[in-house]
Amino acid sequence: MNTRLIAPIALSLVLASPAAAQLGPGPCEDACTLDQVADWALDNDRIAWDFVEAITTEVGPRQAGTEAEERARAWAVEWLEEQGFSNIAVEPFDMETWVPGESHRVEILSPFPQPMVVQPLGNSASTGDKGIEAEVVGFESVGALMAAPNGSLKGKIAYISHDMRPTQDGSGYGFAGPARWIGPGIAAGKGAVATVIKSVGTDFRRNPHTGGTSFPDRTTPIPAGALSLPDAANLERIFERADGKPVRMKLVLTPRMIGTTQSGNVVADITGSDPSLPPVLLACHLDSWWNAPGAFDDGAGCGIIAAAALNVAKAGQPLRTVRLLIAGAEEVGLWGSKAYAEAHADDPIAVGIESDFGADRIWRFESNFRDSNPDLHRQLAQSVARFGVADSGIVASGGADLNIAREQGSAIIDLQQDGTRYFDLHHTPDDTLDKIDPEQLRQNVAVWTQVVGILANTAGPLKRSE
Amino acid sequence: MNTRLIAPIALSLVLASPAAAQLGPGPCEDACTLDQVADWALDNDRIAWDFVEAITTEVGPRQAGTEAEERARAWAVEWLEEQGFSNIAVEPFDMETWVPGESHRVEILSPFPQPMVVQPLGNSASTGDKGIEAEVVGFESVGALMAAPNGSLKGKIAYISHDMRPTQDGSGYGFAGPARWIGPGIAAGKGAVATVIKSVGTDFRRNPHTGGTSFPDRTTPIPAGALSLPDAANLERIFERADGKPVRMKLVLTPRMIGTTQSGNVVADITGSDPSLPPVLLACHLDSWWNAPGAFDDGAGCGIIAAAALNVAKAGQPLRTVRLLIAGAEEVGLWGSKAYAEAHADDPIAVGIESDFGADRIWRFESNFRDSNPDLHRQLAQSVARFGVADSGIVASGGADLNIAREQGSAIIDLQQDGTRYFDLHHTPDDTLDKIDPEQLRQNVAVWTQVVGILANTAGPLKRSE
Repeated sequence: MNTRLIAPIALSLVLASPAAAQLGPGPCEDACTLDQVADWALDNDRIAWDFVEAITTEVGPRQAGTEAEERARAWAVEWLEEQGFSNIAVEPFDMETWVPGESHRVEILSPFPQPMVVQPLGNSASTGDKGIEAEVVGFESVGALMAAPNGSLKGKIAYISHDMRPTQDGSGYGFAGPARWIGPGIAAGKGAVATVIKSVGTDFRRNPHTGGTSFPDRTTPIPAGALSLPDAANLERIFERADGKPVRMKLVLTPRMIGTTQSGNVVADITGSDPSLPPVLLACHLDSWWNAPGAFDDGAGCGIIAAAALNVAKAGQPLRTVRLLIAGAEEVGLWGSKAYAEAHADDPIAVGIESDFGADRIWRFESNFRDSNPDLHRQLAQSVARFGVADSGIVASGGADLNIAREQGSAIIDLQQDGTRYFDLHHTPDDTLDKIDPEQLRQNVAVWTQVVGILANTAGPLKRSE
Repeated sequence: MNTRLIAPIALSLVLASPAAAQLGPGPCEDACTLDQVADWALDNDRIAWDFVEAITTEVGPRQAGTEAEERARAWAVEWLEEQGFSNIAVEPFDMETWVPGESHRVEILSPFPQPMVVQPLGNSASTGDKGIEAEVVGFESVGALMAAPNGSLKGKIAYISHDMRPTQDGSGYGFAGPARWIGPGIAAGKGAVATVIKSVGTDFRRNPHTGGTSFPDRTTPIPAGALSLPDAANLERIFERADGKPVRMKLVLTPRMIGTTQSGNVVADITGSDPSLPPVLLACHLDSWWNAPGAFDDGAGCGIIAAAALNVAKAGQPLRTVRLLIAGAEEVGLWGSKAYAEAHADDPIAVGIESDFGADRIWRFESNFRDSNPDLHRQLAQSVARFGVADSGIVASGGADLNIAREQGSAIIDLQQDGTRYFDLHHTPDDTLDKIDPEQLRQNVAVWTQVVGILANTAGPLKRSE
């Protein structure tokens, strides 16, 4: 055991916050095996919960590029220090920053006047304080919008619907997502003065799902907002009951671009015993949308990767360094992922793994080296079967913050979480601590501990040339 | 069968809205028994759904005393005409009207700055546009607040918590409700400049539960708001993590009293064959809070009573008139109930029944004549046992809109609905159509049809002198 590593962790039990002091006794009296540590984490881990509970309480929402995200970085550095990580650093980068503004209102003016609930999409333009009043024209899908003649939306507000259903693997997002990702840009190209979409989500709460949209290069951004799903359903009933009469809407959204500001990635290590070996990179993101404290997205992910790194060290100093990449500005365009990949293009990593899909249980193991290194793939998959995780032939492609792994062609693992209720909460004000099931969170930590521990103690290349 | 009654109903199938036209074929080819109609309603009723779907779509929120509630009355009159009710009338009354204003914001200033979600309570004063900044002091209950020394809250914002759990009979409301009903008044009396409460509810969504509060006679109203339950939980964690450091809050709420405006009750009859007999009075309320279209509270209730009245007529003209009281301004102080009781003090009613507890299934039958008229009590209880309704020895006391029944000492029946999820939605923006389970809604209609049909065809006094 490496006392240099263990000492600060033990110290944190005395000096750190009350929450940290409750992290409790270790998994075994003396030297622990990795399996023992992972089993212990399943029932006892408190590190991941402590991270997400503390950041959602002490920081709250942390929109990329803003003062709140800067506070989150300072907070994360302090937390990582308390936990005993090494080489803690902020790696700053510049970004172009969008902020949501203060006014987010929508109402139907006729034929059935009533207020609704809306929030702006990332990169939305502003309507100005006085708002826009126009007829709203409904499209049942992005496909239907695409089929509308050019210029046919001149002076109109476009409403874009979709039909998203919950799925365990989150695949419904791929079908419904374009309504948000490209819908407003297409509507703008056809002359629309604004767009409202049915929130890309699967719940029925009056809390819109925001998220980034983008406009093609020569298209001037227009105001773009998401209605909550109950409001979208109501608007669709209004179209039906209006029976051909025009439906007029007033929309007020006042987001703005505030120019270049600074964001940053936070990195931290559990130092390995052989510095010549490329590290195991564990990624999550620090930023959230302004409308929620980001418990599922992605406070939980950062808690899980930090807990896994610390737990691995409980079984002895690993061979490889385990590095955390707590990325900045993910939500608004992967600024942190791109900056990290560029800054560390010449620093090889052994493998990249990301946690950014909530806090529900991991159900499937995927790697991108099942063919090139079948023994390692099998060893890893077998090691987590006892936590209810299935093996898979799907080739892992990694999460948003793993640009570096994709660009280096390194090994990648995806520990797929149950996404059935993820899109009930995704990018909504409802992404709060109470949504996290501590038992499922600990299952994540146990699986991550097991996988990261094996990877960090495997000397040879993980993904072999095929 | 009375053709005068049936004709307009049949007519409505041709002339009325497309929704009404879908109400479908009747329960049987020729003369129907009441049991047949009730059984048919269990699987086939569309009237209640049509009402609540249409009012939430075509009217939306309808705050008492405002233009929106006036639109709702006009809408209700038209709907009742389409359904073939008789003696449809609006009975106007004056009221003192509170409106919520535009700005509802709260943020923690220190030690952990972040925005939260708040909505004003009915009768809240305004902070002014610039808001109030002050230290917030937490109380775990109204009892703890009461124990605070007089003057000890001078210049402070009081936060009042509680511990409400879901219950089938809604009894948790009685324990937690005082935090809202009297908490702000008590805090004001001790010098507080404002109050925020943990929403009186049982969900974990970022949607506050509003509702009326009141201030004692010689206490000047202060601004009073409800935090959503996740925000209240967060504030409590902030107190804990602040570790004695003052927690400062900025609160902006801009409600106002707008003076005397007009509200009104909407009444309508299914005329009985013996006008000398006192009518059966079915009550619900038309107004909702401004923040939701009032599907559970109380669009569903109005749909249920209207459907029951129309269904009873399908078994032939009843002996007694069945009268709907669709009350105005219930939420803000039972103005409609009081006005109706006063205006009709000399018009005896036979029995009062109200539906105002959502749209989930009825599970218990209660009357206030079990002792005085045990045969009728037993007949009614037995008649709805096949719909899964239990008998009860609890003495019915009637809902908020049945002041007239209490003042006249008439018979009262309570058809108790399952309230397990009622306080997830109560007075929140989430009280929308999608929350209604059509199957449970129809069970309500079936039970009501059965009970109202028996009552409307019982000639003698329902509640006998004891």
